Amino acid sequence: MSKGLTSRSEDYSQWYNELVTKADLAEHSSVRGCMVIKPYGYSIWEKMQSVLDKMFKDTGHSNAYFPLFIPKSYFSKEASHVDGFATECAVVTHYRLKNDGNGNIVVDENAKLEEELVVRPTSETIIWNTYKGWIQSYRDLPILVNQWANVVRWEMRTRLFLRTAEFLWQEGHTAHATAEEAVEETERMLEVYADFAENWMALPVVRGKKTPNERFAGALDTYCIEALMQDGKALQAGTSHFLGQNFAKAFDVKFTNKEGKQDYVWATSWGVSTRLIGALIMAHSDDQGLVLPPQLAPIQVVIVPIYKNEEELSAISAIADDLIAKLKKLNISVKYDDRDTQRPGFKFAEYELKGVPVRVAIGGRDLENGTVEIARRDTGEKQTSTQAGLDAYIEQLLNDIQNNIYQKALNFRTENTRKADIYEDFKRLLDENPGFIAAHWDGTPETEQKIKEDTKATIRCIPLNNQKEEGKCILTGKPSTQRVLFARAY
Amino acid sequence: MSKGLTSRSEDYSQWYNELVTKADLAEHSSVRGCMVIKPYGYSIWEKMQSVLDKMFKDTGHSNAYFPLFIPKSYFSKEASHVDGFATECAVVTHYRLKNDGNGNIVVDENAKLEEELVVRPTSETIIWNTYKGWIQSYRDLPILVNQWANVVRWEMRTRLFLRTAEFLWQEGHTAHATAEEAVEETERMLEVYADFAENWMALPVVRGKKTPNERFAGALDTYCIEALMQDGKALQAGTSHFLGQNFAKAFDVKFTNKEGKQDYVWATSWGVSTRLIGALIMAHSDDQGLVLPPQLAPIQVVIVPIYKNEEELSAISAIADDLIAKLKKLNISVKYDDRDTQRPGFKFAEYELKGVPVRVAIGGRDLENGTVEIARRDTGEKQTSTQAGLDAYIEQLLNDIQNNIYQKALNFRTENTRKADIYEDFKRLLDENPGFIAAHWDGTPETEQKIKEDTKATIRCIPLNNQKEEGKCILTGKPSTQRVLFARAY
Repeated sequence: MSKGLTSRSEDYSQWYNELVTKADLAEHSSVRGCMVIKPYGYSIWEKMQSVLDKMFKDTGHSNAYFPLFIPKSYFSKEASHVDGFATECAVVTHYRLKNDGNGNIVVDENAKLEEELVVRPTSETIIWNTYKGWIQSYRDLPILVNQWANVVRWEMRTRLFLRTAEFLWQEGHTAHATAEEAVEETERMLEVYADFAENWMALPVVRGKKTPNERFAGALDTYCIEALMQDGKALQAGTSHFLGQNFAKAFDVKFTNKEGKQDYVWATSWGVSTRLIGALIMAHSDDQGLVLPPQLAPIQVVIVPIYKNEEELSAISAIADDLIAKLKKLNISVKYDDRDTQRPGFKFAEYELKGVPVRVAIGGRDLENGTVEIARRDTGEKQTSTQAGLDAYIEQLLNDIQNNIYQKALNFRTENTRKADIYEDFKRLLDENPGFIAAHWDGTPETEQKIKEDTKATIRCIPLNNQKEEGKCILTGKPSTQRVLFARAY
Repeated sequence: MSKGLTSRSEDYSQWYNELVTKADLAEHSSVRGCMVIKPYGYSIWEKMQSVLDKMFKDTGHSNAYFPLFIPKSYFSKEASHVDGFATECAVVTHYRLKNDGNGNIVVDENAKLEEELVVRPTSETIIWNTYKGWIQSYRDLPILVNQWANVVRWEMRTRLFLRTAEFLWQEGHTAHATAEEAVEETERMLEVYADFAENWMALPVVRGKKTPNERFAGALDTYCIEALMQDGKALQAGTSHFLGQNFAKAFDVKFTNKEGKQDYVWATSWGVSTRLIGALIMAHSDDQGLVLPPQLAPIQVVIVPIYKNEEELSAISAIADDLIAKLKKLNISVKYDDRDTQRPGFKFAEYELKGVPVRVAIGGRDLENGTVEIARRDTGEKQTSTQAGLDAYIEQLLNDIQNNIYQKALNFRTENTRKADIYEDFKRLLDENPGFIAAHWDGTPETEQKIKEDTKATIRCIPLNNQKEEGKCILTGKPSTQRVLFARAY
């Protein structure tokens, strides 16, 4: 199998595009900006979904489903929300097509909607319009709801998983009686995301808050997790918003509190999307293909027989069957690839490309010696192991690989997080040693904007529990009390 | 808790609408025709999804995801498909809104799409356009893919779950090298649906084929499962289509077969939707509320303490905790409702309304006697049971309830499936004893259409393995070789 991947050093962006396609994860559809998520890519999303869904339920949330369409006027009700979301969007204006008599299918102008419908870019408005009917008293609170859904944002420049017009995501929308509770929920869900990123995706993340410039349109505070990709660019992997009473006020959602007084309800929303698959790829993979953390790999172990004749295959298959049964008991997903249409070398390359964490090869000599050959995808190391105790060994190996991938990404981030105190150094670093740059900032939107225009770097976040430190703004020299994290970002 | 449900005999349709709302399953949204599926209703859908998804995977299918939008022209490519689906649909014509300067958000006429996009009513066209790139040789076949998605059909008269503009469903789309394989797949998936309906939903179904009039637009054959609701109306609960080479021809999808010759690919598609929740409700529920089959009930057992003081509650809670731990080991979902804000009678009514299969009440006297009171939702029977061995007893009881609900629905269907040989009898039955009517039909679309116009009854299906029997068409008197199943339907 010829992989012919462009290397990361040669052209990182090209490497990513080729990898997504060649590993059968996704492809561009014929509909501008929309992707097709292929079965292998979707199976990673399913794993992510099932872990996250359990985390949401363990923290008290239930799933529900709200309409795909949002009346145009809803967006105008929350002043800052409309600018953020109602501009580049898919607008439904008609509800019928007809044959024009010449065999052409055309829009039926008699079927024009009174009010246009927007395909949801995010659901705060339709959900808060619904919550109005659900909430009268503090007894109806909190509402802890999540939705798994597709959303559409009309992006002009798209990249598979990272930025597409339609994508899949989950959006949590909660309603609370007090600001404190809502902030607590916002922080709880940020921590759920960070836990998922670090312990499942093997992706170290910085937990932080966005600056006002970078907040979600309609939020009082946006918390985020930020990760560093191998090209030194940052990627926002998840956000959790404290929405204050903005949406409750916009949709007139009041409740009677314990003291019998009316107040507006407090809100949060939080989401992660199929973008996480892009992050997963870009954080760990190499020039041979995907490197998937075992916790999210659709296939954790592949067994490849190497045989000269049917008799040898049959003996190898017996050993493989035994191993498969034992691995399944340990909840390890395993594939036995005994296709006779492809040679072992082809298969090896294929599973390397697809990022299967552990490969077990069993050949004629192994039959004699009671051994197998084990190759781990993350380091490429091969070793000979005894067949006895192999299941427990593989279980341990998968843990090791998970930890190693995480540690490698953490080391990379540590090495590529630098301080800068002089603007020239700051700019040079961005070009020559891209990564996170911790620098002082005077706290104004103007300075942030100026730096962005100059360098394309943005403030990724103000890390939570950030160390206080007197300093001078990297651009203006004005006083600053802490460093914030800058980077160029996806 | 006042339920105040209209009774079925009084107004079946009203009973259904009230039940869906009062049991917190779903509600109409402010977007015309679109529903909000509330957490309790959605949890039933999640149970259905998880069972069906496993069935699909056990039969070799993988999930994938295709775009929400379909270019208008795609519908024209399959001649019969366009009439069936491209008429009443949501049409996206623009991709931007703007502020008109007077504070109004309006469609930006400069952002008109060159070609309108239709929000998918079903995905055959976009998927076969994609499969073209996936299939070159017989080695690429079969493709066995399923998609969980939302779809939109612009329905004018909507009812929660049964008929809404947007609904959730799964759609399988498979590609095969031969007609035989495709037919086999079509029949396999029909059987998966029938298995799911009967063994999980406790819903007896007739497996059959649709007449040409009632086929899916673009199919050579549509298989279906048909169920009978308590008002004697039929409900189509799932369909599986043999699409022949129609979509392959429309999208020019050819493959090289084993003999090295080019041929068009053979297709199937199959789907079930949130409509199944409507079927579940209408088949089993009663004037007190939902009756859910234990296999799909989000809460299978509820435990309600009845206590005079904190000390008694604490003793009851200890027994409840023990029972909960044991039931969880048996994978039985259980809720302990020790809210002190509601009286036991209120709770009893609430869980009756919500269809929880088994209710366990524990009171002061039970503490003395080592007993509990068990009530089963399906029959309303109550009994006193010993605390010892309660978990195994409840497990058995849940099985009994599942079987009983199925048997009850089967008896109902048997009683309400009648033969008619004279058209007057046929019409009288439809009005006076609605249900399935097995009658002879001359096999022509014209007769079928005439009967439909006369009586609103349609041919639900020609049952598989139908008994051959000489007879005369109920309308025309022309010769017929078998009876077909008529009914008025949802």
